[in-house]
Amino acid sequence: MPYLKRDGDVFVLYLGNEGQTDSENRFHPDWIDELHATLDEVAASEGPAALVTTATGKFYSNGLDTDWLFGNLDKIHWYLDRVHTVFSRLLTFPMATVAAVNGHAFGAGAMTATSHDFRVMRSDRGYYSLPEVLLNMPFTVGMNSLVTTRLGNQVAVSTMTTGRRVGGAEALASGIVDGTAEGDAVLAEAVRRAAELTRTRGANLGTIKASLHAPVLEALAVQTSEANLQFGK
Amino acid sequence: MPYLKRDGDVFVLYLGNEGQTDSENRFHPDWIDELHATLDEVAASEGPAALVTTATGKFYSNGLDTDWLFGNLDKIHWYLDRVHTVFSRLLTFPMATVAAVNGHAFGAGAMTATSHDFRVMRSDRGYYSLPEVLLNMPFTVGMNSLVTTRLGNQVAVSTMTTGRRVGGAEALASGIVDGTAEGDAVLAEAVRRAAELTRTRGANLGTIKASLHAPVLEALAVQTSEANLQFGK
Amino acid sequence: MPYLKRDGDVFVLYLGNEGQTDSENRFHPDWIDELHATLDEVAASEGPAALVTTATGKFYSNGLDTDWLFGNLDKIHWYLDRVHTVFSRLLTFPMATVAAVNGHAFGAGAMTATSHDFRVMRSDRGYYSLPEVLLNMPFTVGMNSLVTTRLGNQVAVSTMTTGRRVGGAEALASGIVDGTAEGDAVLAEAVRRAAELTRTRGANLGTIKASLHAPVLEALAVQTSEANLQFGK
Repeated sequence: MPYLKRDGDVFVLYLGNEGQTDSENRFHPDWIDELHATLDEVAASEGPAALVTTATGKFYSNGLDTDWLFGNLDKIHWYLDRVHTVFSRLLTFPMATVAAVNGHAFGAGAMTATSHDFRVMRSDRGYYSLPEVLLNMPFTVGMNSLVTTRLGNQVAVSTMTTGRRVGGAEALASGIVDGTAEGDAVLAEAVRRAAELTRTRGANLGTIKASLHAPVLEALAVQTSEANLQFGK
Repeated sequence: MPYLKRDGDVFVLYLGNEGQTDSENRFHPDWIDELHATLDEVAASEGPAALVTTATGKFYSNGLDTDWLFGNLDKIHWYLDRVHTVFSRLLTFPMATVAAVNGHAFGAGAMTATSHDFRVMRSDRGYYSLPEVLLNMPFTVGMNSLVTTRLGNQVAVSTMTTGRRVGGAEALASGIVDGTAEGDAVLAEAVRRAAELTRTRGANLGTIKASLHAPVLEALAVQTSEANLQFGK
Repeated sequence: MPYLKRDGDVFVLYLGNEGQTDSENRFHPDWIDELHATLDEVAASEGPAALVTTATGKFYSNGLDTDWLFGNLDKIHWYLDRVHTVFSRLLTFPMATVAAVNGHAFGAGAMTATSHDFRVMRSDRGYYSLPEVLLNMPFTVGMNSLVTTRLGNQVAVSTMTTGRRVGGAEALASGIVDGTAEGDAVLAEAVRRAAELTRTRGANLGTIKASLHAPVLEALAVQTSEANLQFGK
């Protein structure tokens, strides 16, 4: 379950379980609820602030909780709409947000990183990947809009249509991330960047982000349905 | 007329005439029909596959068949809509597509390259160019959407408003192409890239591409008319 | 008040006051009127031509005339709509346009530079900055569209949500400008680029630009109102 620490004015939100060094940090419905509760806590703070998200171990987030999903396929539309709320919340969060991508960011985990203002990625380990095409899975209307808009058209083609794994150096060169750092230094580098931006925190920043990302937010708000969730065979 | 060869699981579609080393590969209506027939043949194959398009000699494609067009100006709207079908077909082709740009890619020829997933260009010869502004020609609604969306706003400005010729090195630096190779090695490099992606072939990839390119496809489907085909004087 | 000089076929429009070496070149309503009158003069010329804008001294343009605005807050909607006309006019100007960014380009001054086809910036002095987030000011619908579309999504995030000052080298690396030059050489470099493009001048170029920038122009034409001008607190 997500939990919170603090480094000066920077909130550090861990996506994994406290005390556990390695977890996949997948989007279980309870995990989504707890992530929102943790963000509520950050939003309820006062004064200058910024947010960093990260995890410990091999994964930043491995994406959808397929174990849960395969046992609850009748809830798939509701579930995907819940996943979207994480992206929308981060895109409009009224303080600077930096993802410290400590390990693999796959599928919805990659999209979570992409929903932050900035991203720092380990240069020596871990991949950013959208493997949907290889798993015969679709992108939702909102996911498609998020990736194509945030990464730009050709980077979207090169990730969404191939499913390939992008390491830190290439992710930096193609603009998927904004910086890299070696090993555990990724967290310190993300905190350093966030600490420089704490004074922007406030409702005006939230308004600016909501306008900037308006088309993506509109797509993420489209309710998932049989009609718009098309699986290719 | 376009013709087909095969290199393992990679289909290599030549835009020129078999046995002729040099041709301009312009968009004659019959050439468009034959291109679609050749793509039908590729699409009818089964199993892992990817597509490379290329040509021999000095040109990849020199664009619209102006000789034919000036003799058939009453058919210009029908003709441009037919040209659009080539772009739409490539953008949604249900396997990975790589253009091996062996020589000049001008106007609709450049747009054809841009309709592939990826592009490799000769580094030592040949230009990518959208010369419409210098020929007092307009871009159709669909062509405008294709170029601005695929190349990004500023690269679109720098090509569409100047008509200048972009060589391989600059095309790579500005993201117009994804790789370069010297001389004839351009085809081998395109085949190498395509061969790595043959397992993505399938309906799911087609669906992903159709969503990714939805706004461009919508613009390409706008029927050309007197009203939306505005020539500046 | 803006004034005009000429260097061969290149019109050089100075944003400041003739004979005064240093001025902030803010958007006073009279200054906007004179800028349009000067552009009318350029547009009334005949033959090959291109446009460079620049200024002398420390500023290219420091943006909105906040002194005037705070004394005329009842006219804020009318005023912002007038500011928009400068961006729209430049985006569709029927000849090549190059901004020679001689010094600070802040807020609407930065957006003015971004409304040109190309930008050259001093490498040794001056910043490009959108400080709105730090001043508790909003972006209008049109300004938001201009910046996000012209700079691309992530560069928009990195400027609009931080308010930070971007120097020449970083502005070039991130695509905010297309070239840099040291000191006063910035004007000569902009004129050199413009001089290469004088033959594109004409109505066809205007039509091509109007199509290319259609979504931004549409957003800039949205009348500013209480409802769409939301200030965060």
